[in-house]
Amino acid sequence: MTHPGNFFRDLPDARSGEVSDSFLSEHIVRIERIVSHGQASPPGFWYDQDEAEWVLLLTGAARLRFEDEGVERVLGPGDYLDIKAHRRHRVEWTDPTQPTVWLAVFYRAPRD
Amino acid sequence: MTHPGNFFRDLPDARSGEVSDSFLSEHIVRIERIVSHGQASPPGFWYDQDEAEWVLLLTGAARLRFEDEGVERVLGPGDYLDIKAHRRHRVEWTDPTQPTVWLAVFYRAPRD
Repeated sequence: MTHPGNFFRDLPDARSGEVSDSFLSEHIVRIERIVSHGQASPPGFWYDQDEAEWVLLLTGAARLRFEDEGVERVLGPGDYLDIKAHRRHRVEWTDPTQPTVWLAVFYRAPRD
Repeated sequence: MTHPGNFFRDLPDARSGEVSDSFLSEHIVRIERIVSHGQASPPGFWYDQDEAEWVLLLTGAARLRFEDEGVERVLGPGDYLDIKAHRRHRVEWTDPTQPTVWLAVFYRAPRD
């Protein structure tokens, strides 16, 4: 019996900095695992991405904010968001007590 | 605080048949949640898909076989596979005692 790759095995230690690993990289779609461990976006920093991003939090916890919303989104295991290209957002907080593992699917929508 | 959608909440009861739900559907990429509960592909049936599929098993257990391999792949939580377009495969078994939840990203690679 053949064993496949595992998304949760050999997680990097992200306490000293967020770690991204690519699981699929095609012209129109990229799948990444992002491991956070207490990181947040720098004060005043907003992500403003050319690609759309569908993101699923699998373990841990985070708070995310969109510039066009007054309130934070609170994310726990299973919570997902579809972030359109150039929708400005930032990570306000990730759990400092455990790894937060994200699955991110970056893609280019025809309208982008 | 705004709460996003959750991938694991309100799982469908799949005991009487596999259930697929779409979480993203763009021209070049689709994200689906597939819930199996004891199903297997019919005898002699092989999936032969026009799209490539990156699939991640999140809960439960399954056995999958590629026509071009002599052995089954045994899948548990976190195990993932990238199934190229038209690579024939079948699901030999999914756990009958619990839901098996898959995240499937269907995409069209330039080479397809």
